[in-house]
Amino acid sequence: MALFITFEGGEGSGKSSALKKIIAYFEEQNIPYILTREPGGTPIGEDIRNILLSSQNKNMDIRTEALLFAASRRQHLKEKIWPALEKNIYVLCDRYLDSSLAYQGNARGLGIDEVLDVNRFATEDSLPDLTFFFDIAPEKGLERIAQNESREVNRLDKEALDFHHKVYDGYVKLAKRYPKRIVRIDASQDLEHVVQDCLKVLKERMEQE
Amino acid sequence: MALFITFEGGEGSGKSSALKKIIAYFEEQNIPYILTREPGGTPIGEDIRNILLSSQNKNMDIRTEALLFAASRRQHLKEKIWPALEKNIYVLCDRYLDSSLAYQGNARGLGIDEVLDVNRFATEDSLPDLTFFFDIAPEKGLERIAQNESREVNRLDKEALDFHHKVYDGYVKLAKRYPKRIVRIDASQDLEHVVQDCLKVLKERMEQE
Repeated sequence: MALFITFEGGEGSGKSSALKKIIAYFEEQNIPYILTREPGGTPIGEDIRNILLSSQNKNMDIRTEALLFAASRRQHLKEKIWPALEKNIYVLCDRYLDSSLAYQGNARGLGIDEVLDVNRFATEDSLPDLTFFFDIAPEKGLERIAQNESREVNRLDKEALDFHHKVYDGYVKLAKRYPKRIVRIDASQDLEHVVQDCLKVLKERMEQE
Repeated sequence: MALFITFEGGEGSGKSSALKKIIAYFEEQNIPYILTREPGGTPIGEDIRNILLSSQNKNMDIRTEALLFAASRRQHLKEKIWPALEKNIYVLCDRYLDSSLAYQGNARGLGIDEVLDVNRFATEDSLPDLTFFFDIAPEKGLERIAQNESREVNRLDKEALDFHHKVYDGYVKLAKRYPKRIVRIDASQDLEHVVQDCLKVLKERMEQE
């Protein structure tokens, strides 16, 4: 059976670059897959994403935000993820449930369990089969982004750094809570080694199926 | 202290007509109030309402719908309802939590308790002080709408009628669950008597404050 695999981590953790290399493996091996992302992934999800990203919605409450992410996730699951899995197509998803738990639950202070409850309703307890947590110290991740954007890293204020530390702590808690599902990948390595580590785990899991 | 009052009931139960007459009382008595409605009530809520009503979103899942209603409710509460109550302004709201419980929870089959859980997250357990349930047999309510729209009532198919019965049953269950908060109003009476009944209850509650 095809697996539902999610990619999680803080800013600059290198998820997206690694994902591009990982799908190359799926292409080579002729393994059917879809690559998708949250929020979004469906027409309704894109409408919700526009509300989430609209600059006019600066006064959006954190709970409103968490509910909108959950609504988008539900539609994504129903319209795209479940139908793919039913056809034995692998699903590779850039951010999913754990992003809500780490960002809104832990970093924004709503509580991991509270946000999980809402997402249980949204997902009917459907968790990914495998989640890669791209583990890198927040400072290093933000430094990477700053380098890419040719910005100076000291422009990042302390408040932003605190927030990213809380996101990181959230992921660490989740990795402890779901030790079988969530696999930590040392994302401070160069891209090639990160991809090798992911593929090693992925192949083992695929063999078990 | 000002009260948070909601108006609930099925289609054609006469909520909106009665509300117009009830606010006339607030005007006469110079009682500060706002009249609002769900879904909507805020700019973010209106954006969410557009997604809910968009004809392109026919394939929206029921859980997505329930989460979007909850998101809209949260923003409404935070941006409009709570600030009004803090300023001692009465809030009169056309549909609120009980609509989600009766429509998505009971009639669409998600379960009242499941939908309540999501709304607990959205509202932080903030219930209205007083809720009028406009109690009228679904057939009669739909007949009223048909008359207003000069449609023949027999055009309503059985599936639609079954659905409205389930909505009604949902409200009856809720009235039993919250006997102090939810007051049943015999909405089969003429408008004048319906308004009189509402105002009688309202004045009693206002005196208790």
